[in-house]
Amino acid sequence: MKRAKLFTPGPTEVPPEVLETQARPLVHHRSDAFRKAHLEVIEGLRYILRTEGPVVLLASSGTGAMEAAVVNLTRPGDKALVTVNGKFSERWAEITRTYGVKTVVVEAEWGESVAPEAIERAFEVNPGVSVFFTTHSETSTGVLQDVETLARIAHDHDALVIVDGISSVCAHDVRVDEWGIDCMVGGAQKGVMTPPGLSFLSLSPQAVRKMTAGRHPCYYFDLLAATRTAEKGDTPYTPAITLVFALQRALQMIREEGIEKVIARHAANARAVRAAVRALGLGLFASVPSNATTAAVPPPDKAAAIVRTMEERYGVKITGGQGKLKGKIIRLGHLGWYDRDDMVILISALEAALVDLEIVPGLGAGLEALGKAYRQSTP
Amino acid sequence: MKRAKLFTPGPTEVPPEVLETQARPLVHHRSDAFRKAHLEVIEGLRYILRTEGPVVLLASSGTGAMEAAVVNLTRPGDKALVTVNGKFSERWAEITRTYGVKTVVVEAEWGESVAPEAIERAFEVNPGVSVFFTTHSETSTGVLQDVETLARIAHDHDALVIVDGISSVCAHDVRVDEWGIDCMVGGAQKGVMTPPGLSFLSLSPQAVRKMTAGRHPCYYFDLLAATRTAEKGDTPYTPAITLVFALQRALQMIREEGIEKVIARHAANARAVRAAVRALGLGLFASVPSNATTAAVPPPDKAAAIVRTMEERYGVKITGGQGKLKGKIIRLGHLGWYDRDDMVILISALEAALVDLEIVPGLGAGLEALGKAYRQSTP
Repeated sequence: MKRAKLFTPGPTEVPPEVLETQARPLVHHRSDAFRKAHLEVIEGLRYILRTEGPVVLLASSGTGAMEAAVVNLTRPGDKALVTVNGKFSERWAEITRTYGVKTVVVEAEWGESVAPEAIERAFEVNPGVSVFFTTHSETSTGVLQDVETLARIAHDHDALVIVDGISSVCAHDVRVDEWGIDCMVGGAQKGVMTPPGLSFLSLSPQAVRKMTAGRHPCYYFDLLAATRTAEKGDTPYTPAITLVFALQRALQMIREEGIEKVIARHAANARAVRAAVRALGLGLFASVPSNATTAAVPPPDKAAAIVRTMEERYGVKITGGQGKLKGKIIRLGHLGWYDRDDMVILISALEAALVDLEIVPGLGAGLEALGKAYRQSTP
Repeated sequence: MKRAKLFTPGPTEVPPEVLETQARPLVHHRSDAFRKAHLEVIEGLRYILRTEGPVVLLASSGTGAMEAAVVNLTRPGDKALVTVNGKFSERWAEITRTYGVKTVVVEAEWGESVAPEAIERAFEVNPGVSVFFTTHSETSTGVLQDVETLARIAHDHDALVIVDGISSVCAHDVRVDEWGIDCMVGGAQKGVMTPPGLSFLSLSPQAVRKMTAGRHPCYYFDLLAATRTAEKGDTPYTPAITLVFALQRALQMIREEGIEKVIARHAANARAVRAAVRALGLGLFASVPSNATTAAVPPPDKAAAIVRTMEERYGVKITGGQGKLKGKIIRLGHLGWYDRDDMVILISALEAALVDLEIVPGLGAGLEALGKAYRQSTP
């Protein structure tokens, strides 16, 4: 009867207050009303990214913004260091290679984060690296990386630091200016609770200087043009107007709650879900778990059945593994507009599916552990 | 009190039935419900483009699709012929030059269309041209081009034919397969009555062959990946889900009306607006006018005041000229979801502004001419 509720790593559920803005009659983008909304969105993004620098909005999904970062912030012949520990960090390396950037990859097992020592060593044995790409929260594995430390090492070796924050923004502390992130990439359909179709990037003064001095050919993703026009609330090309108004409303909600509380809510939800997953006898896949997504390890060959049962019988859509993790993990999303009640729905469906599939003997253990974890995390 | 109603060349007004689809709770893109909608959208686009070939949807504005056409359908070292007769056709040449494509430009005065003879001659004196770029309806000047004839000439010289149909689709007959258009580019916020943020392209077998054999580096705009995934209703990256459902509804409305009637409605509106503009003593800028937009020439130095007065006093948003036409023309948009009543609103506001600005002595001539033109065009 009902649409499956989304507990996916993105797109995530969007608040009705945000959805309904899209149903309003269209406002032209060359108008004061649009410019005002666009400028407010940029301010809101600066607030959650903790930056005073330029932030640019693009009409594309997050991958478009990743490509924009590569074509604007590298040049042919540049050497880049890329951390790879999952499907989305692999994407950085795919894009840099697509553009002929010499790409040094530092890998960690999927499920692990890349050790700072490995990055330190890679910079030492690969002289001439000028750009460092990494991933804050690896959506395919649910792993969080210590971006603050990694950025410090990269800066010590004079590399520009470019971070995929697509699934970390709003779920974790993100301090673009304090940590010296030269470019942080985000997407609308994640922590900022907006339908997909928008992405955004922050740019440090060093990033702006580098792209001004030279870059790959680009047109739609020309970040210099976008930065220049954004100052007045304009865009070089027609923006996704309804989505910009949706993002404006979502950022208002985040400001009303306060970014610290938003992050604390994500931490509490993630902690409780992990406790429930453990209590149900499933393994936790990520060595350092992200607050965005919990990757859980069910018994062999059961992942697909769990995902299907949760959706078909209980109206709860989670996702399985991607790439080489297909069939091996399940991913429980809690990024964005979710509270304790939602986690009760999520874990209740997981428990029920595990009982149906005879993986656990009876109901209760998951919800009990969930409730206890919330009690402990509430001040 | 009221929001200004849009009579702009894009974004255009969006029907409430289309807007409201965006207010519905989000559906995940890896789901049968989304795939079904996406496949229906592709079928609907095939219907309006009159093609049996692949059609690809992108989460970007129309310019993104133009760039996608260039990077996928040219290679470094290719020689391209580009018609330029306004701001948007200039964009083709800007993008081809950005990617190092040898670019031969055949210009016409802004307001004119490029003569077939000039194209014939250009092919003769520029051997080795392998790609031809042109613009069906030049939104900056309101000029229509005879794409059928131009495509025939280009094919006679073995060039791939790539057409910007962003403001012609639904306003004019577009016959991709019959005319041999290898790639037709469109945007959602135009004739297909959807909020901005989506673009689309058709691809002929020759276009697919060419991009399979070699192209520029690309990632987000990889049309081979997009074509492959589109067959099953999937996309390589997260699609703009709410906009896809909006486009689905808009295309249903176009099918219900019938594409021939949609085009005839555009023709009737455009003819009536031109009659009204002439009756009000303004010049018509386009030698061959498009049904999308009427570019009118007011007395010197009056364009900005007319645009402002129409919006501020009468709640009707039109636009002025762009680039070198700034301050010289006004553009009255009637592309998309507009009928006779809307044109009455548009011309009534134009008349009133012209009286306010003492450009015409009294009200009536415009609306009278509008009404007469509709009487003549109704069978």
